[in-house]
Amino acid sequence: MELRILGCHSATPKPGEFPSSQALLIHNQWILLDAGEGTQMQLRRYGVKFSRIKHIFITHLHGDHVYGLFGLLSTFRLLNRQTELHVHGPEPLKPLLKHVFQLSQVELTYPLHLHAVSPEKPALILDEKKFTVSSIPLNHRTDTTGYIIREKPAPRKLNTEAIKQYPEIDIWAYNNLKAGKDIILDDGRIIPNNELTFDPPPPKSYAYITDTAYLPDIVPRLHNIDVLYHEATFACEDENLATKTFHSTACQAARIARAAQVKKLILGHFSSRYRNLNILLNEAQKIFPETELAFEGKHILI
Amino acid sequence: MELRILGCHSATPKPGEFPSSQALLIHNQWILLDAGEGTQMQLRRYGVKFSRIKHIFITHLHGDHVYGLFGLLSTFRLLNRQTELHVHGPEPLKPLLKHVFQLSQVELTYPLHLHAVSPEKPALILDEKKFTVSSIPLNHRTDTTGYIIREKPAPRKLNTEAIKQYPEIDIWAYNNLKAGKDIILDDGRIIPNNELTFDPPPPKSYAYITDTAYLPDIVPRLHNIDVLYHEATFACEDENLATKTFHSTACQAARIARAAQVKKLILGHFSSRYRNLNILLNEAQKIFPETELAFEGKHILI
Repeated sequence: MELRILGCHSATPKPGEFPSSQALLIHNQWILLDAGEGTQMQLRRYGVKFSRIKHIFITHLHGDHVYGLFGLLSTFRLLNRQTELHVHGPEPLKPLLKHVFQLSQVELTYPLHLHAVSPEKPALILDEKKFTVSSIPLNHRTDTTGYIIREKPAPRKLNTEAIKQYPEIDIWAYNNLKAGKDIILDDGRIIPNNELTFDPPPPKSYAYITDTAYLPDIVPRLHNIDVLYHEATFACEDENLATKTFHSTACQAARIARAAQVKKLILGHFSSRYRNLNILLNEAQKIFPETELAFEGKHILI
Repeated sequence: MELRILGCHSATPKPGEFPSSQALLIHNQWILLDAGEGTQMQLRRYGVKFSRIKHIFITHLHGDHVYGLFGLLSTFRLLNRQTELHVHGPEPLKPLLKHVFQLSQVELTYPLHLHAVSPEKPALILDEKKFTVSSIPLNHRTDTTGYIIREKPAPRKLNTEAIKQYPEIDIWAYNNLKAGKDIILDDGRIIPNNELTFDPPPPKSYAYITDTAYLPDIVPRLHNIDVLYHEATFACEDENLATKTFHSTACQAARIARAAQVKKLILGHFSSRYRNLNILLNEAQKIFPETELAFEGKHILI
């Protein structure tokens, strides 16, 4: 998996600072997470091929997460896209797109499927051959869900040297070996799978958690995640502002990361009030050292 | 008047290429013309103070002219704007903004006045102390109007040396002189105004004409305009595409400029199909030499 951060600032953007949007490359497919204003320019800037975006996930309908969707979907039409597109998000996304496209006369050239995501309970919302996407309800001023993307376990790797010791193992058995099954030879002997295969690389996982008030309930679902992006709109000393606006502080994000024992935390969705974001970074690192700041264009290999 | 071009490309933007938007500084007030995606970032980039924008004029509701309005108006709210804002544009702009703000939960902190502009006949739509804004119907695939901004004539300038020759002229008469009136002295002599004053600088004018098919009907209304921005989506050899999509070519824009005897023509709203826009420039200059290309960030003193 490869993550490209397209925008990681909260509203009131400045030059070079874009509102929320990320592109995740997974098994040759780009997944788009949120689409704040300017998303289509940022996708172009970082070479994300429009034709390889099949799924878009929207956390909630505040403008800084969705106002770039109209232009992006219109551009797909101008580029004469034919392949279907799936957009997952809160139920009112459907009337929103309907009204905007009707009043600005956009007639799509491609099938657009809108999938309403439940704001109340976690759900498996996409089950592809090699990965899944689950939703996770958050606690914001409007219906909001985070998303967790998990690779499925890869097939076990064949230990060709070990297999050679058993010439009676037919090539047809290899798929069973990759699937983790033991081998029963014609003479009845059982060769345990782990004698003939290696562990595959562990499946990777990424969680996109924004916007939300501090919500320790989500910790079990984030357990052992490889990379967690968690909003940190405010510095720790501004916790009262975070509480009031249903956002999180850098300390709160770090506490979630520590409790969930994730491998890495990325802070984002910064308020424009902080000139120096290292304040937020330092605060979070005291609680969870493996913390980094998001920035526009940041590339993360997961 | 000072014009700042924020975006001058048609849809499917690339990095650094923004869809239509311009800011015009006139007598200490910024006027915004169209608001394609990214307008708020561009306003910040070029130092246009949000608080000095009182009027926004939208030509039509295609996304590349209006999808940046949602974010801009939301940002005004986040900045706690209190002063009223006037947005002029096609009538369906009202339900469009209503739906978008309702579904994305934007509650404005300031009075927003939406003014429907007639798509059928030219009209004076803003009459300020020092300038006016008129609408001019265009010929596009949806209701579209261009806008003409004209300074009102400035007061005549006092010729202090000449006035000194007549000590009997009271200081209270100066306003009459500035207004162009003659002076009648106590002895009945009449001093003609032009003996005591100089001509003021001629009032300046700017026309924003986009998007439209070739429309010679507008020429009389553009007569003698100082700067004309006219869309030139296509090169001259692609006139069939222009006709089909209700856009103009560079040659057609130049013909309008020549017929209207404007002082300067700026071409814009470029299709992304042209790598080298100098083709359009050269074509237009053959017809109307005083032609320039628009580009993002271009600054024009009118």
